[in-house]
Amino acid sequence: MKTYFSCCCPSLIPSRETARISLLCALIALYMLAGAALFSSLERPAELKAHQLWERRLRDFSYEHNINLEDLKSLLCHYEEARTAGIRAEQGRALWDIHGAFYFVGTVVSTIGFGVTAPITVTGKALLILYGLLGCSATILFFNLFLERVITMLSLLIFTCHRRRIEHSGLQGRTSEGDRNEDWKPSVYQVTFILFVAVLLVACGAASLYSVMEGWTYIQSLYFCFVAFSTVGFGDFVSGQREHHEDTWAYQVANCLLMLLGVCCTYSLFNTIAVIIKQGLDWMLRTLAWVFAGFAKICCNSDHYSNSVFLTLSLLYVLVKMTL
Amino acid sequence: MKTYFSCCCPSLIPSRETARISLLCALIALYMLAGAALFSSLERPAELKAHQLWERRLRDFSYEHNINLEDLKSLLCHYEEARTAGIRAEQGRALWDIHGAFYFVGTVVSTIGFGVTAPITVTGKALLILYGLLGCSATILFFNLFLERVITMLSLLIFTCHRRRIEHSGLQGRTSEGDRNEDWKPSVYQVTFILFVAVLLVACGAASLYSVMEGWTYIQSLYFCFVAFSTVGFGDFVSGQREHHEDTWAYQVANCLLMLLGVCCTYSLFNTIAVIIKQGLDWMLRTLAWVFAGFAKICCNSDHYSNSVFLTLSLLYVLVKMTL
Ligand SMILES: [K+]
Ligand SMILES: [K+]
Repeated sequence: MKTYFSCCCPSLIPSRETARISLLCALIALYMLAGAALFSSLERPAELKAHQLWERRLRDFSYEHNINLEDLKSLLCHYEEARTAGIRAEQGRALWDIHGAFYFVGTVVSTIGFGVTAPITVTGKALLILYGLLGCSATILFFNLFLERVITMLSLLIFTCHRRRIEHSGLQGRTSEGDRNEDWKPSVYQVTFILFVAVLLVACGAASLYSVMEGWTYIQSLYFCFVAFSTVGFGDFVSGQREHHEDTWAYQVANCLLMLLGVCCTYSLFNTIAVIIKQGLDWMLRTLAWVFAGFAKICCNSDHYSNSVFLTLSLLYVLVKMTL
Repeated sequence: MKTYFSCCCPSLIPSRETARISLLCALIALYMLAGAALFSSLERPAELKAHQLWERRLRDFSYEHNINLEDLKSLLCHYEEARTAGIRAEQGRALWDIHGAFYFVGTVVSTIGFGVTAPITVTGKALLILYGLLGCSATILFFNLFLERVITMLSLLIFTCHRRRIEHSGLQGRTSEGDRNEDWKPSVYQVTFILFVAVLLVACGAASLYSVMEGWTYIQSLYFCFVAFSTVGFGDFVSGQREHHEDTWAYQVANCLLMLLGVCCTYSLFNTIAVIIKQGLDWMLRTLAWVFAGFAKICCNSDHYSNSVFLTLSLLYVLVKMTL
């Protein structure tokens, strides 16, 4: 790849990195704008409806004066429904006993951060900063080591399959070539595909468990799995928070293990997709440079690479302006 | 490092990776247990107190029957106080207009996931899975490219300082040696320190802004900064959610930029701390192997490395048992 721009002077080589990150920034911004438009059109009506429903219920309730504790509780339940990322009117399980605190600490170091539990005290808040700094770093190291191992394992697996297939087809000349492990690299697409299937299997398995144990629909459980595994962690659905879950140790352990496995696999998947995106960016930059090189040759005889970068950014600027 | 275990047969080399990841797992588990105990002891009394307060208020309210809309709203405010990661009784700004949706999409791709906004509709939930898969991967790529650039820049900066200092002290022989850029690598501690200072500066600056604009105390603002920058995102404090913030464009833009800068710097900081932790793990493994090598030599003449791993794990098991 580096040879592609070797015609330019060496001082332009870092510029290529800049072009790549700029292009990525612009694409992410566009992707976010498109996403915002899409989600806004999808969710805005539901929000307005929920708002109206809540306001009507509140008004109705304010008119009736003969209330008791049960009525109040049902009001709070409706209030919860009105809010998406609901606070339960009654806390399910104790939040800050040792199990709850362990769950909390898990959501911190994994950076999932459901937010069902968050420190109230000032000391707790200050401690969290110090605690998280070391904890999150250690977890990032763990994820990276896991990623390394998974890539090594999958490479070995794919290599074995690859060699077996070649041996099967009886091409002796190629077999000796395939034996040189160092020369052979598995395709990033194969690794990504295997990881995708792995994430899908873990998510589907976990979703089946959650839909039984939490009383969610299957799509809600799948949504929860994705939100948790990607470490986004909205906290609108959180597993293992009901009071009766305190007793079911097997479920709590299974929950933690599934979460750990899911997060690790998803982290690996994200990283392999990132490699594919990087390849895509390089391809786009090459294409743009090639297109604008011809362009620049016609316009003037100045350095085509810096020209192409400038023109790309102008084009992206126009695109963004058009979108807004 | 690899030569250290070269006395063992080559098939044991992958075992070292296993030993490292196992040790890290054990240490993270211990760290989480210690954290759980600490946070539990800190937060449990506050939780109980909040619980009692809320129950008392609910009881008091159920006794008085003459309620109006204002009373109800004040009840809901107390209800919020009782809950840590509170739903606001009145939504600040519209959640799913285009600005709100953009904020939401930002929390998804950055994996912060405050959870103030989360899709309600089934279509929205399903879409989020697909959307997040690509978005999170692209952001991970962006973070990694940013990390690369930061490391390169800081290395150059430290190298320049290093060379200038040597030139200043007039050691000509070393200067020519220092000129060989390829041979020289900056210490990970220096890079980590600079990044730590950078994160601290961004966090302190942002906290000053937030404490003015959001009405939080300075420690709350700092806590919010850490929670957001580390992409944990509990959602107990979320910036830019008040209704009057809709008009202050400058604040919204500053908020987004500070968040972006903070997340990027913190990601880089976590990664450099992870390198330090990795070095620490290797040091621990070497020390343990060295200690148990002597041990094993006395006990029997079997392979000392696998023995040392076994003994380490036994020791850790005993430690865990003692902690519980
Ligand atoms: K979160
Ligand atoms: K998060």
